[in-house]
Amino acid sequence: MKMAEARRLEALPREESLRLLGSVSLGRLVFTHLALPAIRPVNHLVEGDQIIIRAYLGTAINTAVGNHSGIVVAYEADMIDPGSHLGWSVIIVGRASRLSDAAAIARYRQILQPWVTDGMDDVITIHADMVDGFRLVHGAA
Amino acid sequence: MKMAEARRLEALPREESLRLLGSVSLGRLVFTHLALPAIRPVNHLVEGDQIIIRAYLGTAINTAVGNHSGIVVAYEADMIDPGSHLGWSVIIVGRASRLSDAAAIARYRQILQPWVTDGMDDVITIHADMVDGFRLVHGAA
Repeated sequence: MKMAEARRLEALPREESLRLLGSVSLGRLVFTHLALPAIRPVNHLVEGDQIIIRAYLGTAINTAVGNHSGIVVAYEADMIDPGSHLGWSVIIVGRASRLSDAAAIARYRQILQPWVTDGMDDVITIHADMVDGFRLVHGAA
Repeated sequence: MKMAEARRLEALPREESLRLLGSVSLGRLVFTHLALPAIRPVNHLVEGDQIIIRAYLGTAINTAVGNHSGIVVAYEADMIDPGSHLGWSVIIVGRASRLSDAAAIARYRQILQPWVTDGMDDVITIHADMVDGFRLVHGAA
């Protein structure tokens, strides 16, 4: 039996976490739907303290975002090697709202690729109120 | 500007979803912590209707799992190409409990690699009460 190599978690500063999040395009939106935890993989981009996503999430997030002001969601992206288990993960927790400004929606629709091409997706912004990033690195914990 | 290629979502049957989930080792546990949505990347394996994870989640999940019987969590894994956006995603929603049987814990500790090697991780099982899998494929929606 091979001995597992030592690995430990290293917390990342906020700026570095947001930079890493912006370096990838795929993440996962976490929200509450019908009182149950829900998660959907989506596309994102990062602009300052805002994470902008474009996705068709059916009625789930529409109901959640539409009926509350400042619903809190989590957003996660990672890049972790399944073999070595080295890499990073960034988790955002913040207020989400659906974009309603037509010009802004049109701009994001141009730069954010949707996953499913039926034009039924929304543009949602998440304010990065809490940013929690870590890196998995070699070394004893 | 390149035209986006048409893609659509295809729902997957339960058996196929669980098989795909079992074909990868990395997923994301979704739970509620201090009334906020929380998500952590972890390792898993699938045995029948159970998803077994091993991870150090600090006090967050311990509190959540330990103080309730049958707390409901979500679990997600995906394999989506960041370029073509083709691939699959599987989402489980189900009751989670921390394993307390010493023999079972020892067995899973042998076959499930921890992420951080400080021995402070727990073994948690999630019952796949709801299984929601989809594939992103070429084609008009």
